[in-house]
Amino acid sequence: MLEVLRLGHRHGRDDRISTHVGLTARQWGADEVVFSGDEDSSMIQSQRDIVDRWGGEISIRYENSWRKEISEFEGLRVHLTMYGERINEMEDVLRDRLSDEKDLLVIVGAEKVPRWVYENVEFNVSVGNQPHSEIAALAVFLDRVKEGEIKQEFDRAEIEVEPSEDRKLTREK
Amino acid sequence: MLEVLRLGHRHGRDDRISTHVGLTARQWGADEVVFSGDEDSSMIQSQRDIVDRWGGEISIRYENSWRKEISEFEGLRVHLTMYGERINEMEDVLRDRLSDEKDLLVIVGAEKVPRWVYENVEFNVSVGNQPHSEIAALAVFLDRVKEGEIKQEFDRAEIEVEPSEDRKLTREK
Repeated sequence: MLEVLRLGHRHGRDDRISTHVGLTARQWGADEVVFSGDEDSSMIQSQRDIVDRWGGEISIRYENSWRKEISEFEGLRVHLTMYGERINEMEDVLRDRLSDEKDLLVIVGAEKVPRWVYENVEFNVSVGNQPHSEIAALAVFLDRVKEGEIKQEFDRAEIEVEPSEDRKLTREK
Repeated sequence: MLEVLRLGHRHGRDDRISTHVGLTARQWGADEVVFSGDEDSSMIQSQRDIVDRWGGEISIRYENSWRKEISEFEGLRVHLTMYGERINEMEDVLRDRLSDEKDLLVIVGAEKVPRWVYENVEFNVSVGNQPHSEIAALAVFLDRVKEGEIKQEFDRAEIEVEPSEDRKLTREK
């Protein structure tokens, strides 16, 4: 089970960033994306609309109690932050741990992530120690951990892309 | 030389997405990030402010004539799009081509990318054939092409992060 938790969503300001977090989680096969911060039913609904049309089993929901979401998660918890240990040095350790643990929670934050998060996860990992795109960090982290396995088949899709050299091709299913 | 061109920036709506494109380009060692679409000096200035503080030689600029920017680029031009050929199938070809060509232009779009772009690049490449985060696509594309080389040293930085297991540590330089 792969869950992605997005902390500190702000209505309006973060709509598109949070949507990209959701799309990225879905693209690398997450089972669940959870948003905390401002409750924002339109942002969540727009992602569910994408899933309705493009398929897949991913669950998308809001959770006010993000501390509980983290502390009650049974499995490996990884917080992605520009302050964390370098992914290039942690990758083998993470893969080892993931061969034992079945479930992975990946946490991405907004601008201010409380100290509590750093102290209540198994790993704080950086994808670059520079000012940070949490979307880029999530994408590269998942791509590395999943060894480049970009999800291609989505159940119950109404539409899919025909990959092309030079044009936009889709087919209704 | 690595250049990233962001098409179709819209003032307001795209500020944060475009900023994340710039941060991602910088994190994988781009020399230049070029924005087209709406001219938006505050978005560009905020990125230059990050570079002033966190270092590096990256140039960030606006260009109205994106067709010219593409057609006059001497080197390999890759457009990232959910409709393109799958990166997992193109990766070796791209690396081969990049060992001959010294310069790479990576193009990421906004919602509607004109047909002209698809027809005036060497490759249209998808990082997933699903509704798409251009930030995630750019990050994973660069991470793959650069074989995981996340840039760590930035010249003339005023500040840097000390990677840590469990806290935020920075040092002034």
